[in-house]
Amino acid sequence: MSRIVITLLTDFGLQDEFVGVMKGVIWGIAPDANIADISHAVPPQNVLHGALVLGRAYRYFPAGSIHLAVVDPGVGTARRGIALRVGEHTFVGPDNGLFSMPLTSGAPVAAVSLDNPAYRLPAVSRSFHGRDVFAPAAAYLVRGVALKELGEPVTAPVTLEIPRALRIANVWKAQVLLVDGFGNLITNLTEVDLQGQTVAEVVCQGQVIQGVEVTFGSRRPGELLAMFDSSGTLSLCVVNGSAAERLGAGAGTPVEVRVA
Amino acid sequence: MSRIVITLLTDFGLQDEFVGVMKGVIWGIAPDANIADISHAVPPQNVLHGALVLGRAYRYFPAGSIHLAVVDPGVGTARRGIALRVGEHTFVGPDNGLFSMPLTSGAPVAAVSLDNPAYRLPAVSRSFHGRDVFAPAAAYLVRGVALKELGEPVTAPVTLEIPRALRIANVWKAQVLLVDGFGNLITNLTEVDLQGQTVAEVVCQGQVIQGVEVTFGSRRPGELLAMFDSSGTLSLCVVNGSAAERLGAGAGTPVEVRVA
Amino acid sequence: MSRIVITLLTDFGLQDEFVGVMKGVIWGIAPDANIADISHAVPPQNVLHGALVLGRAYRYFPAGSIHLAVVDPGVGTARRGIALRVGEHTFVGPDNGLFSMPLTSGAPVAAVSLDNPAYRLPAVSRSFHGRDVFAPAAAYLVRGVALKELGEPVTAPVTLEIPRALRIANVWKAQVLLVDGFGNLITNLTEVDLQGQTVAEVVCQGQVIQGVEVTFGSRRPGELLAMFDSSGTLSLCVVNGSAAERLGAGAGTPVEVRVA
Repeated sequence: MSRIVITLLTDFGLQDEFVGVMKGVIWGIAPDANIADISHAVPPQNVLHGALVLGRAYRYFPAGSIHLAVVDPGVGTARRGIALRVGEHTFVGPDNGLFSMPLTSGAPVAAVSLDNPAYRLPAVSRSFHGRDVFAPAAAYLVRGVALKELGEPVTAPVTLEIPRALRIANVWKAQVLLVDGFGNLITNLTEVDLQGQTVAEVVCQGQVIQGVEVTFGSRRPGELLAMFDSSGTLSLCVVNGSAAERLGAGAGTPVEVRVA
Repeated sequence: MSRIVITLLTDFGLQDEFVGVMKGVIWGIAPDANIADISHAVPPQNVLHGALVLGRAYRYFPAGSIHLAVVDPGVGTARRGIALRVGEHTFVGPDNGLFSMPLTSGAPVAAVSLDNPAYRLPAVSRSFHGRDVFAPAAAYLVRGVALKELGEPVTAPVTLEIPRALRIANVWKAQVLLVDGFGNLITNLTEVDLQGQTVAEVVCQGQVIQGVEVTFGSRRPGELLAMFDSSGTLSLCVVNGSAAERLGAGAGTPVEVRVA
Repeated sequence: MSRIVITLLTDFGLQDEFVGVMKGVIWGIAPDANIADISHAVPPQNVLHGALVLGRAYRYFPAGSIHLAVVDPGVGTARRGIALRVGEHTFVGPDNGLFSMPLTSGAPVAAVSLDNPAYRLPAVSRSFHGRDVFAPAAAYLVRGVALKELGEPVTAPVTLEIPRALRIANVWKAQVLLVDGFGNLITNLTEVDLQGQTVAEVVCQGQVIQGVEVTFGSRRPGELLAMFDSSGTLSLCVVNGSAAERLGAGAGTPVEVRVA
């Protein structure tokens, strides 16, 4: 058994024992797993936010990694638990759209529902499937259990509608998708969308930004700028400050981008 | 040497280097240990809170795990450091009640004080025994050092008085033991205590809750409800909100439970 | 390949995916590395703060450890990335003074700039060298790549001016260097500086503290005291409280110490 990575992404926070307990369950089954926290600060119940953060992160983990994610307002109801293989990555968690980014990436998908009681804890609670269902499933996958052993095939895993930027003549109608922990506003417009078009102007909440900087270091503290972030996504930032606060903007705020 | 889990629970927070330094000391002695953080957000000096969180968490770690806990207002005074084996789990930390839950679990206990200088860092500070005494002790246990090698036997480790729910006719007089990071109020009444009795009504701070829900998903955001949490303990929750704030309640607040 | 420790210290916070992604990159190259977080709560862009925390922490990690640190306001500009070997520890990150403490420790230094594209990710962004340059460099070092393979020798890595305490007759003119997460004020005066002199009085913001306590336990909650912390550095503390708040003090606040 090689050292496979299991990543964790939840809205549990780090105050309580929940994240640690999931690691205990995982290591009880798969002691050689490497466990990496992606984030436990997803805003409570915000599945879209979790889906976007996971979508930004997962490709940087080694092929063969297993991504356990729990943002799960429907825990204990009829919503399914699922495991998905998309390309070289596997995902385990609730079937509520949390895996929208890999599911819509164009790579082939195999999915099962987590039905098989052999790969759960003996007692399954109504409120903590991260511990009782998802952590064991991820750990058994590390141990080499085949995806199809976990349960019945699922044909249409849930995906969320992720708003896409639209081009109308020389203006892209985009919006803020995500606000990071520093208050940077991450939009839904990427360098790939632009296909080499030059950004002339970015407008958000009535503020006009001329052009795009290549890095923070090119402007002074307190200045508002636009840049393509390390994922190639157009972001609005205040050097050493919060663009979300400066602009009174958040997820859903419109952003207009004029291209030359 | 197999991959044994060491868990960490402290009131150190994650801002400073303290938790990382303990991991450095552990891996310097036992490089194959798996280290899992349970929580570093125990309210400063709150030994009872730490004891309760540890009590909720430890059983989910593999048999053979070592639980290093440091909530230690008496560091540098005469209070002892101890290592305890209770059933299949081992605990290392100050002898101040932090291990009350395993100690009162009914399982057999073996305990020693951490006297042996061979299993400490060469220089022991007066204010950071987590680094100088407890981390080395835990790591040497992973390496196979016997418990009795760490020091002299201890016969009566300190236990805290944990308030217990009392039944008077058809009313349980319970109280809030712990507030979790979401503001859920965790009481001292469990499904095991109730032995199948049905909860008719829960009263806290003058608010009356009818019955017990099986999961969050059964009520709407903002509603106050009672449920048995994933540890089987009666908890008061506000869906997507804080019951602690709603009710102005905290550790020690009385909760009355009428059973049918 | 033995289990070498990589430590991480950044100003990234834990809300976003950045720290997790660096672990993904590391484990993709060096799956047997142990990864320990020192802190991700360095105040944004505060290189001196990061340098001081790293300086307090690194000696407690095993010989052979690799310390990856990213507090990097100049990312994407002309500032170099470097790897340094100082004694038995290796450091990887921006050449901006973050490694001032090991660099001025008196131990021999070997340093290279991170030029070799073979030891970076294939695409290097302008804003996340932690992921694209530093994590791969650290991971390849774990795999046994020689320091000199990473790039050209560097002769004068950047060091910050760390203010030193000065003695004038029987008074040390010191200052606060660092405020920890509890509001303790960590000065630039150490037990080593004092060479056995007895502290009679400590004065900060007009408040006079008589003598030095050996531990928190010797004073009551709410009392202001001076003590040598677990690193042997004079610190001002409020038992169960914040000395920074009590005194309105922070990094740079003068502290006078009268010795007998």
